[in-house]
Amino acid sequence: MPKIVDHAKQKHLVAEAALRIIRRSGLEQATVRNISKEAGLSVGSMRHYFSTQAELFAFCMNLFVQRVQSRVEALPSEGPVVPNLKLVLMQFVPVDEDRIMEMEVWLSFNAKALIFPELKRLSEEMQAGLQQASQFVIDTLLQQQLAKPGLDVELEVEKLNALVDGLAIHQLMHPGRLDAGRNESIIEQHLYSLCKVEE
Amino acid sequence: MPKIVDHAKQKHLVAEAALRIIRRSGLEQATVRNISKEAGLSVGSMRHYFSTQAELFAFCMNLFVQRVQSRVEALPSEGPVVPNLKLVLMQFVPVDEDRIMEMEVWLSFNAKALIFPELKRLSEEMQAGLQQASQFVIDTLLQQQLAKPGLDVELEVEKLNALVDGLAIHQLMHPGRLDAGRNESIIEQHLYSLCKVEE
Repeated sequence: MPKIVDHAKQKHLVAEAALRIIRRSGLEQATVRNISKEAGLSVGSMRHYFSTQAELFAFCMNLFVQRVQSRVEALPSEGPVVPNLKLVLMQFVPVDEDRIMEMEVWLSFNAKALIFPELKRLSEEMQAGLQQASQFVIDTLLQQQLAKPGLDVELEVEKLNALVDGLAIHQLMHPGRLDAGRNESIIEQHLYSLCKVEE
Repeated sequence: MPKIVDHAKQKHLVAEAALRIIRRSGLEQATVRNISKEAGLSVGSMRHYFSTQAELFAFCMNLFVQRVQSRVEALPSEGPVVPNLKLVLMQFVPVDEDRIMEMEVWLSFNAKALIFPELKRLSEEMQAGLQQASQFVIDTLLQQQLAKPGLDVELEVEKLNALVDGLAIHQLMHPGRLDAGRNESIIEQHLYSLCKVEE
């Protein structure tokens, strides 16, 4: 009797094998041969799961998007607004093993997308998550009537997006220089700077 | 009679050949063989200029640091403070061919430094330029008595550093989304947000 293979589960195994290789040895080592070996599958069976390398990368990036989304959904929705919004943004800063891995692969991927234009669209999709979170944060400050009058919404969304990504990259590259608590303070101070001064 | 070779000039030629390869095909293609071919030199002669690949990369990054420094030194020192400080920070944002090239190589290099710890120190030196510029900007606002009272200097330096790097990376990755003028507006607005409100 043939073994019943859970296709979705196998796809995940392949993607996880690819991520381990990317993190360990860089994106250029994520070849069909290396990934199949890492996943314990035959080279031939790989095409059942992903027909191109771009498809595999897209799947990996999608895993990250889902992981960030699950973390954001698990956050408390009750309680003080600014500390809660800060926690949303902190999901994009590499302060634990999962987030460090996501960010390392993201950085390798971005560097590669500069050379291979076919990866450009994917890199843009990856960027969309933080862009949306930044928009959500500014919108929430406005809806909760916490925002300073006359706030330039579009500018503040771009600025927040750039600030959090910059902090995330510095945290990844120089983990000793800025600790997670420092990043949290900077994000919190920034959010309060967008709020009305309490009378 | 043997040809008299200008050693310093040849080193520059080799570094420029390496940079062209890195930009075109990625850091992993910057091998001794490829660089010597690109520079029109023999593989054997390469060791006269750089004994290790790390030494060559260090020289390339140093070229970038010098280029940024020359651009900053060429800026006007007279005139309104905030627009001048904005121009200093804009030297780190990839808005023209030279800066795009610097930033692309910088990003490839950072992605690689995550995998090869021996490149870590270099990547930190590269980061120091913007860190120093951010410190200079905040110090100048204080010296010129423009800064808001009670400014947290250390926090604002880190924040400015992250903001400009984030804008720079977004500009590089998604040149269509944010144009140079938009980046300038965000940096200018941020600098004014650090200043006392004019009575």
